[in-house]
Formats: sequence, C-alpha cells, structure tokens
Amino acid sequence: MASGDSLRDHGDPGDAPSIPPPLTQPVNATRPSAAEEARTIAASTNTGTLATLTTAGDPWASFVTYGLLDGGPVLCVSNLAEHGRNLAGDPRASIAIVAAATDSDPLANSRITLAGVAEKPTGDRLVVARQAHLDAVPAAKYYVDYSDFTLWVLRVDRVRWVGGYGRMDSAIGTDYAAAEPDPIQAVAGGAIEHLNADHAEALAAMARTLGGYPDTTAATCTGVDRYGLDLKVITERGIAYPRVSYAQRLDSADELRSATVELTRRARSG
Amino acid sequence: MASGDSLRDHGDPGDAPSIPPPLTQPVNATRPSAAEEARTIAASTNTGTLATLTTAGDPWASFVTYGLLDGGPVLCVSNLAEHGRNLAGDPRASIAIVAAATDSDPLANSRITLAGVAEKPTGDRLVVARQAHLDAVPAAKYYVDYSDFTLWVLRVDRVRWVGGYGRMDSAIGTDYAAAEPDPIQAVAGGAIEHLNADHAEALAAMARTLGGYPDTTAATCTGVDRYGLDLKVITERGIAYPRVSYAQRLDSADELRSATVELTRRARSG
Repeated sequence: MASGDSLRDHGDPGDAPSIPPPLTQPVNATRPSAAEEARTIAASTNTGTLATLTTAGDPWASFVTYGLLDGGPVLCVSNLAEHGRNLAGDPRASIAIVAAATDSDPLANSRITLAGVAEKPTGDRLVVARQAHLDAVPAAKYYVDYSDFTLWVLRVDRVRWVGGYGRMDSAIGTDYAAAEPDPIQAVAGGAIEHLNADHAEALAAMARTLGGYPDTTAATCTGVDRYGLDLKVITERGIAYPRVSYAQRLDSADELRSATVELTRRARSG
Repeated sequence: MASGDSLRDHGDPGDAPSIPPPLTQPVNATRPSAAEEARTIAASTNTGTLATLTTAGDPWASFVTYGLLDGGPVLCVSNLAEHGRNLAGDPRASIAIVAAATDSDPLANSRITLAGVAEKPTGDRLVVARQAHLDAVPAAKYYVDYSDFTLWVLRVDRVRWVGGYGRMDSAIGTDYAAAEPDPIQAVAGGAIEHLNADHAEALAAMARTLGGYPDTTAATCTGVDRYGLDLKVITERGIAYPRVSYAQRLDSADELRSATVELTRRARSG
C-alpha cells in the first residue's frame, strides 16, 4: 500500500481530471524505446543546453549548437567561452535537448538528457565530426576552422528521456548509439494535421476497436511515429490517450500512408 | 600585435563580410546593461535548462519550468526526478534561458546563464515563491502542493549574458537583482514589424543622421527596447548594425510611440 500511495502521490495530477482506463484490451500498443525516442529528439534540432563543470566544480548551463555523429552531439565551442574552458578543465558533460513543443504546457512535451564525456576527435574522426557539425549548423563555416574553436564529441554513456507527464525512461549509451532516429519524424507534423482535418472518424474507429476505448465519441491524433499513432479520445468517462500501432514497423516515410489506411481498414472491420 | 591578432582570430567571422565602421559619431547609442538584458530575457519565458550536480559530481542538464521572484528563478521539481535528487544533494545550480529566436542562426540570438545556489524558501517567502511559480506556470497547480515536489529559488550570484556574435558581458548577482526587465519587451515584436512595414524611410534617416552611417541606402529595425532601436543598414560599403537611442529612458510601453516619433523628427532635422 505504501508503495502504491507513493506512486499515486507522484502520478496523480492533483485536481486534474483522472484518466479513464481502457474497457477492452488494446490490440497493439507498440511504442518506440527510450533509446529510439532519444535518437529521434536529438536528430530533430541543432540546439541544446550543455552542462559543464567550472574550475570550482559548479554546474554551468550554456546554450550550444550541435551536429550528430552516430548520435553523439558534436559541439564547436570557443576556448575563450566559459563552457570551452570548462570542457578543457574537466570533460564530463551532459546536454539537454527539447523537442519542438506540441502542447502549450511545457512539461507535457518531450525532452532528453545525454550524459557522458566530451572527447576531442582526431584524424579521420575529426574530419567527419567537423562535417557533421557543419551539416547541422551551416553558420559554423565562419568559425569552425579558427584556432580558438575546438570540436568536441560527447560520448554518450547515459540517456534520460521524458516524453511528458508520466512517460519517461532511461537508456544506456550503447542502446542509444544502436537506435535509429525515427524515419517518419520529418513528415509527422503534416500527417497529424491531415489525419485530424480529414480522417476524424477513422481515428475514432481506431480508438474504439484497436485502442481499448469502445466508448470513444471523438478522437484526434497527437503523435505519429514508425510504430503507430498516439490518440487523444473523448469518452463520457473522460479524456484518455490510447495508442494504436501498425502491424509492423515502418522503415520509410513512404510507408506511412498505406499503414494508416491499413489501420483504418482493420479498425472498421474490427 | 599579438593581442590584436588574437582578438581578430576570435571576433572576425571567417569569410563573412566585414562590417563597415561608422563615418560619423553616433549621437546616442545607449543600450541596456548586461544585468538589464538578463532580467528581460529571464522575464520573457517560463522554461530553461537547469545544470545540477549528480552524486558523482557530474554535470546534469535538464529541462525545467520557472517563475521569477525578484529575478531569481523559482523551480518546482519532483524529489524523485534526477534534478530534484541532485539539488537535495548539492544545491549549486545554474540555469540557461534562451530568448525567442529572431535570427535563423541560433548563435545570433540572445541567451543567459544565471548561476548560484538553490535555496528552499520557508514561511512568507515560500508563499510568494509558490505564487510566483504558479503565475508563470499555470499547469503547476496540478502538482505544486504534492509532498514529493519541492520549490527551490535560485539565488543568483553570477550572470552571463550573450546577445549574439560579439555581444556579451557578465554581471554580478546584486546588479541583476536590482535591474528591471524591459517594460517595452511585450510590445517590441509588434513595434519592429510596424516600423519596418510603414517607416522604412524614417529608419534610414535615423541611421544617416543619428547612427553614424550617412551613406545608408536602406535600414530595417531588428530590436526595440526602453533605450532605443537596433538597426540593420545597407550601405555601399556593406551591412552594418548601428544603434539609435531616445533622449531618455522609457518607463512604459505607452511612451514608445512618441519616442520613435521624436527620434524621426530629430533624424530628419539633423
């Protein structure tokens, strides 16, 4: 009981409405792993906030740009800047990266922390690290080759992913490195908009027969990835957030349309 | 020579075009101080990235929401979350806050780091800290009073402001606390749009007679604050970024219109 109460204390959103449980077993609620979520968020932008250590050992947060080399953030920082001096003194570092907001409540959105040790690439690795940074941050061409700028690659040992309220998990560096960024990500925004504008009834059918909410009165799509769709459904019992997933993982954005058509067909025949 | 070369190595933007110097003395180029810039950026949003120390003393970057109490960020974090555990173990912390982007090059935009020690407010101070957080982060009403969440106020000892390439300065905590957020900030975006849409010739006149660039062929406004306007001007010698300031500091957004009319009058009679 103590453990259950403790969990409720943390997880229950105060006087926010509680979430009704599903009435039937969801058919397939496969989701990306924390490592995959983290790789996808890291690949979604080119800015983050670095945490380094000052000479006094104090934590120092500073805005940075980055590219990616096998998922490892590639920084290009001035040796004269505080974070550059910090890395030269102690290479331990982490970087927080925030996904583009999809909800007006900041804590409902996704973010990650990648933690490890910053390493100076040399030889061939320096060449590819430099290019990875330039690919992500074109303006770096103006300073990347200056003698007082250093390229650093963060060797990621530990990953923390927070997908919003109550959705969070950790991953180890090797799983992060092995994971792929979601190939659907680039088209997800447009797909969500299209599904909500033109296929509201198909989404409601998915929630009813595949998502565990047969009492759905209306549904909208809040997320699209290579494994399936996140839905927000309205029922007379309250608002819920089921997951409906494709029969198999998508390996290209080109497969998204046929996969959602197939989901709709299954939902309507279910 | 060595010192000059060293500065150029850092400051010269590579093969980017160099900035032509003014041909006449700018009339009044008063700007906000670093402390004022920092207070304004801190007041402009409710999210930032916190740097804390893990039990191993590693730097940990994590996304947070905040309110402000006399400029000090008020955090509300779960004791179960990594940053909550970190603060409980060692209260040294800093927070990086990024202003809304006005330039597609991320490093051309403004950001700050506020560094110090996180303190648990008690008594009356807890009451106002709680309200300051709720005012800035309405969704916190769902968890602010849970037993496993703690309010922390960052006592700001040291401030670093970076206003873009080559614009940066530090401030001490007492100057930061004493500074005011810019009262013009809330209307700055609309004012910039209006000036550029309808008053391009007035801006060019300001640059010519007040800003030090009599050879201006076109000017746009890139920033508005309580002290004046930032301009981007085109000359046959290249692009420059002069500053033109009002005769006196504005204390309310209501004063902005008359101040820019007066700047225009001075520019045209100059």
